Amino acid sequence: MFDGPLQRLIDELARLPGIGKKSAQRMAFHLLSVEEADALRLAQSITDLREQLGICKRCFNVTSTEECSICRDPKRDGSIVCVVERAQDIAVIERTQEFRGRYHVLGGSISPIGGVGPSQLRISELGDRIAVEGITELIVATNPTVEGDVTAMYLARELKPTGVRITRLAMGLPVGGDLDYADELTLGRALTGRMEM
Amino acid sequence: MFDGPLQRLIDELARLPGIGKKSAQRMAFHLLSVEEADALRLAQSITDLREQLGICKRCFNVTSTEECSICRDPKRDGSIVCVVERAQDIAVIERTQEFRGRYHVLGGSISPIGGVGPSQLRISELGDRIAVEGITELIVATNPTVEGDVTAMYLARELKPTGVRITRLAMGLPVGGDLDYADELTLGRALTGRMEM
Repeated sequence: MFDGPLQRLIDELARLPGIGKKSAQRMAFHLLSVEEADALRLAQSITDLREQLGICKRCFNVTSTEECSICRDPKRDGSIVCVVERAQDIAVIERTQEFRGRYHVLGGSISPIGGVGPSQLRISELGDRIAVEGITELIVATNPTVEGDVTAMYLARELKPTGVRITRLAMGLPVGGDLDYADELTLGRALTGRMEM
Repeated sequence: MFDGPLQRLIDELARLPGIGKKSAQRMAFHLLSVEEADALRLAQSITDLREQLGICKRCFNVTSTEECSICRDPKRDGSIVCVVERAQDIAVIERTQEFRGRYHVLGGSISPIGGVGPSQLRISELGDRIAVEGITELIVATNPTVEGDVTAMYLARELKPTGVRITRLAMGLPVGGDLDYADELTLGRALTGRMEM
């Protein structure tokens, strides 16, 4: 439909998550209409990303240095570690400003359907950290999904023998939500997890 | 929040149309997780786009050759020209497979609020084409908006003296739509533009 280089860019953009053909087309024409320097800066950012970024050797967060900025921060409490599925989950928890410990990125969740078993996650690395770093509490922040539940239960069973305290993020009603709109699973979790007032 | 190169890419992606901070973040992490070659191919496509694409000297469509593929196609009818606001509108009309003439890209629409006057659009170039190419009909396919209407009316007034037939895309109910959901402006247009059965 479009001229070669334009169609190739549309095809590449349409491979991004959440981007359909129409959005890809709109983005490509945008990149054609802006200042050349602006378009090339995006291209350069993608190249830089792949050339400069690696993985933190301690927590497996994304970093351009050997250890990530959180692991290097002496003000963070190394005894509490929040276990997340993916590196981007760290940003979500950091935004709450409620957590001052460190992280551990599992690299996914246990999913028999997706063909992901415990050995493909960074669970043994987490076990090693508990011993070496003197971790006393793991907050398991896997997703509130079946896969996240299974992963959390597996972690609890595997790592309980180390003596570490293992907790999980509370599930219940979203703040500001309406009871009317809560699904029965969430409402069920809110009931079983009810708190003393 | 994120490590340098990652944050810079998120910022660049968030400048694309229709992409918010969350989508930009998701896209950036996607580009971090795919094969390096896949990510670099997107970067290269953006660079290629800006290096290889230019504008058709006849109709101002996007092209990597001197004239675009539509203008070069001997099977297209050069006597009918469809006038569009932007190059991407050509793809929309091509998809209908109802039009076998050529195009003319105005480069926008008259918008006093946006500070776009008729002199900034490629209207004199269109006048020149009418004379040189023996064009007999202009189908004005500007958007069904106030700006598109004003542009269409201006074109009709300016170019009528050349003797060319000037038509405009019909406005009315969308096919498959429901009368209940039609806004009153569209319904009004459908009434005034009603067709003999």
